[in-house]
Amino acid sequence: MGTDMIDAFRSYREKMNEKLLAQDNKLIKRIFNLDTNAYMEGVLPAKTKEMLGLVSSMVLRCDDCIKYHLEKCFEHKVTSEEIMEIFAVANLVGGTIVIPHTRRALEYWEELKKTGS
Amino acid sequence: MGTDMIDAFRSYREKMNEKLLAQDNKLIKRIFNLDTNAYMEGVLPAKTKEMLGLVSSMVLRCDDCIKYHLEKCFEHKVTSEEIMEIFAVANLVGGTIVIPHTRRALEYWEELKKTGS
Amino acid sequence: MGTDMIDAFRSYREKMNEKLLAQDNKLIKRIFNLDTNAYMEGVLPAKTKEMLGLVSSMVLRCDDCIKYHLEKCFEHKVTSEEIMEIFAVANLVGGTIVIPHTRRALEYWEELKKTGS
Amino acid sequence: MGTDMIDAFRSYREKMNEKLLAQDNKLIKRIFNLDTNAYMEGVLPAKTKEMLGLVSSMVLRCDDCIKYHLEKCFEHKVTSEEIMEIFAVANLVGGTIVIPHTRRALEYWEELKKTGS
Amino acid sequence: MGTDMIDAFRSYREKMNEKLLAQDNKLIKRIFNLDTNAYMEGVLPAKTKEMLGLVSSMVLRCDDCIKYHLEKCFEHKVTSEEIMEIFAVANLVGGTIVIPHTRRALEYWEELKKTGS
Amino acid sequence: MGTDMIDAFRSYREKMNEKLLAQDNKLIKRIFNLDTNAYMEGVLPAKTKEMLGLVSSMVLRCDDCIKYHLEKCFEHKVTSEEIMEIFAVANLVGGTIVIPHTRRALEYWEELKKTGS
Repeated sequence: MGTDMIDAFRSYREKMNEKLLAQDNKLIKRIFNLDTNAYMEGVLPAKTKEMLGLVSSMVLRCDDCIKYHLEKCFEHKVTSEEIMEIFAVANLVGGTIVIPHTRRALEYWEELKKTGS
Repeated sequence: MGTDMIDAFRSYREKMNEKLLAQDNKLIKRIFNLDTNAYMEGVLPAKTKEMLGLVSSMVLRCDDCIKYHLEKCFEHKVTSEEIMEIFAVANLVGGTIVIPHTRRALEYWEELKKTGS
Repeated sequence: MGTDMIDAFRSYREKMNEKLLAQDNKLIKRIFNLDTNAYMEGVLPAKTKEMLGLVSSMVLRCDDCIKYHLEKCFEHKVTSEEIMEIFAVANLVGGTIVIPHTRRALEYWEELKKTGS
Repeated sequence: MGTDMIDAFRSYREKMNEKLLAQDNKLIKRIFNLDTNAYMEGVLPAKTKEMLGLVSSMVLRCDDCIKYHLEKCFEHKVTSEEIMEIFAVANLVGGTIVIPHTRRALEYWEELKKTGS
Repeated sequence: MGTDMIDAFRSYREKMNEKLLAQDNKLIKRIFNLDTNAYMEGVLPAKTKEMLGLVSSMVLRCDDCIKYHLEKCFEHKVTSEEIMEIFAVANLVGGTIVIPHTRRALEYWEELKKTGS
Repeated sequence: MGTDMIDAFRSYREKMNEKLLAQDNKLIKRIFNLDTNAYMEGVLPAKTKEMLGLVSSMVLRCDDCIKYHLEKCFEHKVTSEEIMEIFAVANLVGGTIVIPHTRRALEYWEELKKTGS
């Protein structure tokens, strides 16, 4: 269960992913499949991979990708202090154009924490 | 005639394009002019050029540009299966950060099909 | 005092910047600090630096960054004709994918002029 | 058989691809596999897909990707006039920062034509 | 007259521009034409426009574009201190990934100063 | 001590960094300073931060930044299997345009291993 902001993100994402996969384009389906496998436990822990996914999404400035990886980081018990260090690297490497995305990322992270246990 | 989503996109685009051109900056006007000419029938068919415009807009992740080229592709009778192959190339070349734009692109494409005959 | 669009931008920006800084990440705080200093009067006038910030934000296609630098340009009495020449360079260098951002930039600029004296 | 420039590109690419695949990372191998499949004949002709790959590589400004798709376009008998129309769309959509890549692309295209029959 | 580095850049650029224009693609020719006009004296001085072109090229990380605008800035008597302030804005807005381009930009700027007077 | 490829990268980087800092631009100096601090041990281990720096450099496709973070990862005893998982995430998130940079990254990584122990 999420807050309104979280539910809106998740339900649109889920609805449209289903429609995309229903188009039955083999390449799209395989890319989605890879996307799931990429963040599984490997020689690097799944948690580290999600942090890699998050920082990549930030420097590439993709808000929805950021939200998705924030959710995964939350599931993997990444702490707020760790999140901030990821944000910091992203803003340094990617520059101040990452700041507006960081504002929205922090807002989403705080929503996730509200749902938390 | 479009659906609400289509009408909103078109009317804002048209209104602001008019205001931009009314500023009477010669360079802006000439860029707009080139933009119209670039997609006209040449040694490549106009339909192919619109597909080039669409895939470029996707890998550069510009939602409004994607919508515009989806409209043009729709006018040129590009099929849903062809659209999906363009989406697939865009997601492969541009990576999974293109996925959120693909979700929105598919939604807009389905809106266009509702208007269709 | 701004219009609704301006107030919404400013209040969200201010609220989230405060929350970001309250996280007390030293690197983030220093990046914010640099961001303030960068646009101060130097061998280049502050006005010129804001124009550099604006054109950079446009070619990197960051709407919130564009709004911020438009505000600063407005404070520095950049004229609408000058703004249009900056828009023109951005659209030429960055290509037609900058056009949708230019539409939104012009809309915000006109909002700023409504507040103006 | 290619010219020196072509041979240098191909031999480095082939050598390093082999080394990459020899690392035996499953995800990398599957991405390479998708990359081959993506440009195969589908509802869109392979030739059209290569043109999509070329224009995407140009707006994303990846010289090696451009060379690769130029080779494929050459194999598919894309004409120089068609190549120029693809270059034109890329320069319009991606802006004048694409020009230096276009200079190198034309040089490589002319090398390919020297080998040609 | 330039140094070896400058001469190499200029002669390749000039040679390939000629070849590109000789292809006689109308759109390419018009883009080149706009590119010349964009930096002419307007309500903004030509010098300011070249600074806008330089900072845009830096944040978009196009080395050849940077070289070109450095040459123009040099012709317009931009000082080294001013160049450094432009570099600073570019590195702040665009992030530390701009640093390697800044190293090469400074090297080219110093070559230009050797040709000096 | 490195191989020729490593020495060339390091000596150019060091020489030009010195020249950049010698220009005495305060903002540039502070950005360089932040860049050093950002990767220091925090709540996240320095090793993890270097991995974040590496993946960011890859998706942003900056070869020199990649080389730098590969060196740091090597110092922190990141294994080749871990490096490959970082490459995999980068290629998935950033798309196949990251492949040419991955080829060069692997080549540099193998050079680093030659210096080994």
